[in-house]
Amino acid sequence: MDEQILTQGRFAGWTFAYEGKAKRLYRSPEGDRYLVRFKDDATAFNGKKRGQIESKGIVNSRISSLLFRLLEEHGVETHLLEEVGPGQMLVRAVEIIPLEVVVRNLTTGSLSRRLGLPEGRPIDPPLVEFYYKSDALDDPLVYPEHAGLLGAAREEEVVRLRELALQVNGVLQAFFQQLRIVLVDFKLEFGRADGRILLADELSPDTCRFWEAGTGRKLDKDRFRQDLGQVEEAYQEMLRRVEAGATGRVASSAGMGGGGR
Amino acid sequence: MDEQILTQGRFAGWTFAYEGKAKRLYRSPEGDRYLVRFKDDATAFNGKKRGQIESKGIVNSRISSLLFRLLEEHGVETHLLEEVGPGQMLVRAVEIIPLEVVVRNLTTGSLSRRLGLPEGRPIDPPLVEFYYKSDALDDPLVYPEHAGLLGAAREEEVVRLRELALQVNGVLQAFFQQLRIVLVDFKLEFGRADGRILLADELSPDTCRFWEAGTGRKLDKDRFRQDLGQVEEAYQEMLRRVEAGATGRVASSAGMGGGGR
Ligand SMILES: Nc1ncnc2c1ncn2[C@@H]1O[C@H](COP(=O)(O)OP(=O)(O)O)[C@@H](O)[C@H]1O
Ligand SMILES: Nc1ncnc2c1ncn2[C@@H]1O[C@H](COP(=O)(O)OP(=O)(O)O)[C@@H](O)[C@H]1O
Ligand SMILES: [Mg+2]
Ligand SMILES: [Mg+2]
Repeated sequence: MDEQILTQGRFAGWTFAYEGKAKRLYRSPEGDRYLVRFKDDATAFNGKKRGQIESKGIVNSRISSLLFRLLEEHGVETHLLEEVGPGQMLVRAVEIIPLEVVVRNLTTGSLSRRLGLPEGRPIDPPLVEFYYKSDALDDPLVYPEHAGLLGAAREEEVVRLRELALQVNGVLQAFFQQLRIVLVDFKLEFGRADGRILLADELSPDTCRFWEAGTGRKLDKDRFRQDLGQVEEAYQEMLRRVEAGATGRVASSAGMGGGGR
Repeated sequence: MDEQILTQGRFAGWTFAYEGKAKRLYRSPEGDRYLVRFKDDATAFNGKKRGQIESKGIVNSRISSLLFRLLEEHGVETHLLEEVGPGQMLVRAVEIIPLEVVVRNLTTGSLSRRLGLPEGRPIDPPLVEFYYKSDALDDPLVYPEHAGLLGAAREEEVVRLRELALQVNGVLQAFFQQLRIVLVDFKLEFGRADGRILLADELSPDTCRFWEAGTGRKLDKDRFRQDLGQVEEAYQEMLRRVEAGATGRVASSAGMGGGGR
């Protein structure tokens, strides 16, 4: 897994490009695509807490691929080109915009902490926040104007990111509702390619908060962050549900894709 | 200075209402006005650094009064009713909106720290930021939407605050330019009274950053924050200049009020 140049099979000759906290990227000889290998490494609180979650790479890669495909079907352009075996995704190379775009439907996490707000209060209309992607600065919250000052994105781009993020939220909320999952919040990354803006990175229990409808059971990385136990099980449970939703096997009378009405 | 009820002179019967880090407020019997007594106490970094700056109360009260009067002349409504002797201001009681409204013309301070931006870079157009006034939460940066969630202000009010803040910036920039002072940034507080929004609190070297044109010499609370020395002198120097500007005694050929052209 630590090769500098892949030597076997379809990706022979692809070169190691970048290793982040959750993924390792290999660049195509032409430089236009990346092979993304998802790791089982788990980090939280900007790398201060570290661990491993068994099979997380495989789960997150699969969930990301299914959700990106769903979004494409609903008109959102993503970097996904192809799912290529467990834990791997083939994507278009983009110039990542160094902003974490966060959409929130319920209060929790850093929002509640930063502002002293109670947990689990509905936010309607949904809130879109931008954080400057900088481990050194601890990902500070920024205004569109700050993003401009930082050279992270032009203000018009930020307006577009906001629209796209809300569009993604609409599609995902409808999808997860039929799976009896509350989409609490999530983080997106976007990138530029050929003058267009594509949804990039991943969409997984690492980057979304999922609460089971009714019970409120957490099915995401908060189990790891907060040492709640049954972390692997939660990831597997989310995979099972997303697979079911994506293939129309949802035993629900509500929402899209349910065969029951 | 620590009376619970003032007993002498014009304000006999006024009752102690609130003590903050920089001022003490006494309420009129009718509850519609406050006598504001400015203190010499200096704090920085949300109260973590403490000290005294000789005559600061008198200087800040006088500068605030002169600047509020200037702003009134330019159509900005403020809480100022009357200057009543050294270190005291008579103001309209308002319901303070718990947002610190910061206007920035140059990068420095928390902006540079938070975002890793170099100091002293021009920001054009000026940047308006909102911080939630909460010592417990360390005054976090907020979006207008956050202010709404917090019940601090309605989003339409925040839009109005932004307009007012930029209007204040325009008036003050022109005024300080003729005094050979660069208005780097400043913090405003606003309040509600009779359905209107008034500029409240203070405008002083405690709440503004002033850099001498040409030399860049700091003439504000940063001298205290950063232990630069000559703190009292800087406050006195700013008082001298603002007095001169307000009474048209500016030996300058530039800007408004200068008699030289
Ligand atoms: N399509 C893409 N093109 C280029 N870079 C990408 C693409 N998708 C994701 N990335 C980047 O890959 C890097 C590795 O991901 P990850 O391990 O999650 O990193 P991080 O530690 O920054 O969270 C991230 O910087 C991410 O922005
Ligand atoms: N016109 C006004 N009516 C009511 N409160 C006011 C008015 N002007 C200022 N205040 C409030 O007076 C308090 C005391 O001021 P200060 O000592 O600067 O407090 P702080 O420690 O919050 O900075 C502040 O909470 C400020 O918002
Ligand atoms: Mg990541
Ligand atoms: Mg104050």
